[in-house]
Amino acid sequence: MNPEEFRIHGKQVVDWIADYLQTPEKYPVLAQVKPGDIKNQLPKTPPFEPENMDVILADFNRIILPGITHWNHPGFLAYFANTASAPGILGEMLISALNVNGMLWRTSPSATELEEVVLDWMRQILGLPDSFSGVITDSASVSTLVALTAARESVQKRIREEGLAARSDLPVLRMYCSDQAHSSIEKAGIVLGIGQSNIIHIPSDSEYRMDVHALAAAIREDEEKGYLPFAVSATVGTTATTSIDPVEEIALLCKNKKIWLHVDGAYGGSAAILPEMRYVLNGVQHADSFVVNPHKWMLTPMDCSLLFTRHVGTLKQAFSLVPEYLKTADKDVNNYMDWGVQLGRRFRALKLWFILRSYGVDGIAAILREHCRLAKEFSSWIDAADGYERMAPVLFSVVCFRRHPLHVDDENELENINKEIMDRINASGEFFIAGTKIRGRYFLRVAIGNAATSGRHIERLRNLLQSALP
Amino acid sequence: MNPEEFRIHGKQVVDWIADYLQTPEKYPVLAQVKPGDIKNQLPKTPPFEPENMDVILADFNRIILPGITHWNHPGFLAYFANTASAPGILGEMLISALNVNGMLWRTSPSATELEEVVLDWMRQILGLPDSFSGVITDSASVSTLVALTAARESVQKRIREEGLAARSDLPVLRMYCSDQAHSSIEKAGIVLGIGQSNIIHIPSDSEYRMDVHALAAAIREDEEKGYLPFAVSATVGTTATTSIDPVEEIALLCKNKKIWLHVDGAYGGSAAILPEMRYVLNGVQHADSFVVNPHKWMLTPMDCSLLFTRHVGTLKQAFSLVPEYLKTADKDVNNYMDWGVQLGRRFRALKLWFILRSYGVDGIAAILREHCRLAKEFSSWIDAADGYERMAPVLFSVVCFRRHPLHVDDENELENINKEIMDRINASGEFFIAGTKIRGRYFLRVAIGNAATSGRHIERLRNLLQSALP
Repeated sequence: MNPEEFRIHGKQVVDWIADYLQTPEKYPVLAQVKPGDIKNQLPKTPPFEPENMDVILADFNRIILPGITHWNHPGFLAYFANTASAPGILGEMLISALNVNGMLWRTSPSATELEEVVLDWMRQILGLPDSFSGVITDSASVSTLVALTAARESVQKRIREEGLAARSDLPVLRMYCSDQAHSSIEKAGIVLGIGQSNIIHIPSDSEYRMDVHALAAAIREDEEKGYLPFAVSATVGTTATTSIDPVEEIALLCKNKKIWLHVDGAYGGSAAILPEMRYVLNGVQHADSFVVNPHKWMLTPMDCSLLFTRHVGTLKQAFSLVPEYLKTADKDVNNYMDWGVQLGRRFRALKLWFILRSYGVDGIAAILREHCRLAKEFSSWIDAADGYERMAPVLFSVVCFRRHPLHVDDENELENINKEIMDRINASGEFFIAGTKIRGRYFLRVAIGNAATSGRHIERLRNLLQSALP
Repeated sequence: MNPEEFRIHGKQVVDWIADYLQTPEKYPVLAQVKPGDIKNQLPKTPPFEPENMDVILADFNRIILPGITHWNHPGFLAYFANTASAPGILGEMLISALNVNGMLWRTSPSATELEEVVLDWMRQILGLPDSFSGVITDSASVSTLVALTAARESVQKRIREEGLAARSDLPVLRMYCSDQAHSSIEKAGIVLGIGQSNIIHIPSDSEYRMDVHALAAAIREDEEKGYLPFAVSATVGTTATTSIDPVEEIALLCKNKKIWLHVDGAYGGSAAILPEMRYVLNGVQHADSFVVNPHKWMLTPMDCSLLFTRHVGTLKQAFSLVPEYLKTADKDVNNYMDWGVQLGRRFRALKLWFILRSYGVDGIAAILREHCRLAKEFSSWIDAADGYERMAPVLFSVVCFRRHPLHVDDENELENINKEIMDRINASGEFFIAGTKIRGRYFLRVAIGNAATSGRHIERLRNLLQSALP
């Protein structure tokens, strides 16, 4: 395809995207296909001859689109809903055309310096002190892995050099998170060689917040047994219920014990953009590392995760590895390849810059504020509705609830009732909601996070919920 | 920005990209800026008010562009040159607009099933047996980390469950690669808690290939000392010189010793698309895992790395961790979140599908073949030119060489001469080449890999090299 053909097809695709953003609801939000439906329409062998882009785009519409679950749809209320905003998409277009790799300052000074600037803007927006420096990664999974690698390095036991195994000078390391922490924390611990049995899940209270006394007791007990507690991961906005761990108290404990405190604000951290919700990050100023994902609740297309830390030196000590062919003579520059696992780094700062400027911080805040308002509105309805119960406080834009008919007490029956409601709602094509189970109780989640979701949608959902009653 | 404004600005951006692809050479390939030049033009505080996209795009052109090192430029001959092709950019546009997360089959059946199909196409194209299954990750750094995590799990010592530290039943694990292996191998070993002292760099021969006898001896010796060798990483197309490790012999050794063999073909693996170069992957059919990056030499915008393995079960055993809120009732489906570190997964298969179909396998092969021909042509010139010497065999599309005037023998002086040549070439804005040092000898690399690089460019480079002689 030559540049003139790109110009034509590119504009076709822009038109397609503009239509898509205009009327996302013409598609069912949850793909209504069966396993194999898509695959069976695709050739089993690769294409050897070039094909015309018109044919490929037609196949995209005909074959691929019916199997898409539309995350960028106002009815997407599952997991954490997100948004690929128009300025974010424009950013992605330029990112892919420039195709720079921001591994070294030299390999694109603008990529490195814009990343520094945008991260410092974000630091200010979130109210973090200037002792925090940041790096952009692809996902919270990776940000967390990077943070916990630095945490492991911070015990200063030459783990980078000598590893973990068969060290008479190295006790078993242990890390702590609540029973509500995201699976990426445990996954990081597995990869790091800590082992699942040394990833201690601290019980959470009735509102799903980490029990700090239990944490303190677990750490004390482990110390007495000879373990080396090295990291605590607290969460601002847990995945199931968006609960907020008591970060300030945890930070105090970690400070006293010289344990690295990582805070996972992948979803909830963005709320600190609202002046009236800045408090959700109370205590994070004392954390050692903090992650927030603009690709969750900050209008940014996947992928974009921000990792902040007060210990860049330790982070680099854990990761920096510069082969001969990447040594440069540049002085006083930042080479982000030293900050993590990946050498190949997309120019993600560009889309974030587009979004921050196009919406303005106040514009982003207005959208998040509306999401929170809609969640409150929906939860008021749940609280008032007969036969429904709310399952957790509504702290952000997620409402956890379930149908609970008066005469039903059996948890299995309640689970079946709620799964049936969920399946009916999802089969409508208008909404996609998901369910989860905590402490044996199954419930549904309505996670508001797409910029196009409005009061009209939430009202329609209420009507559907009423008519979907089994 | 509403959809109609996106339509307008999207077409402006498409025009910008089409012009960019048409005349990439209007920009200097290596950014001609000093540290801080970009940053100093950007506000230190975030924007609170929305700004017009015209203003933002103007700033992109005025501030950001001068600090871009143009990877998508035909004169980019540093590191491994790559290409953001037109169909790849179209794919990225739709990927970002759909913004699906391919973590579960359910979260976008098309994302999962197209990934399966495209990976099986790639498997066939590369001549790998059907015992290999694949997954797409962002980078070879992550693919390698995932592969080596599976390798660590394959020793069946409950490392996932119990970790590495203070295990009386677990010897020190050791992994092996050549002294030419990519830094990502060592980085993975560090993250995994193996420790640098247990990542053994086997010497390479005069043509920079891993010495299999030395490998066998190191493994034998380590076994005698009580270490547990668990992984060997071989490379097809090393970063500095594109040497090819003797994979067949290494595979035989690994098979006998029951050691996981990972093969890093991030760059070189793509060459197997050419029937006449299929041999570069000889032996890989016996490997346990294999990585190749379409974002290097297969016309794909960053990021896109393919990880193939014959042991999906072990891979999932190492990584699968499904929290309640991600449990689905779907049967017989593939949930790619179980295959690696990241839960958040972009729909990267879409761009690869666009590229494979738009170029056709034969079209891609033709481009790679031309790159290899240009490299041969350039290396013939180096071989014939007075005062130049070739530093490694030309196996793919990379030529390693240096200026070596007859009367100069001092390595420091040679390094200075070659760095001066490099700096002069790079200051021209026409080309970006990089240098490296092996065994105390500094040399330059010309890495041909951008689809727009033609004979005209290589001829011009020769002329510049002649006139740049210090």
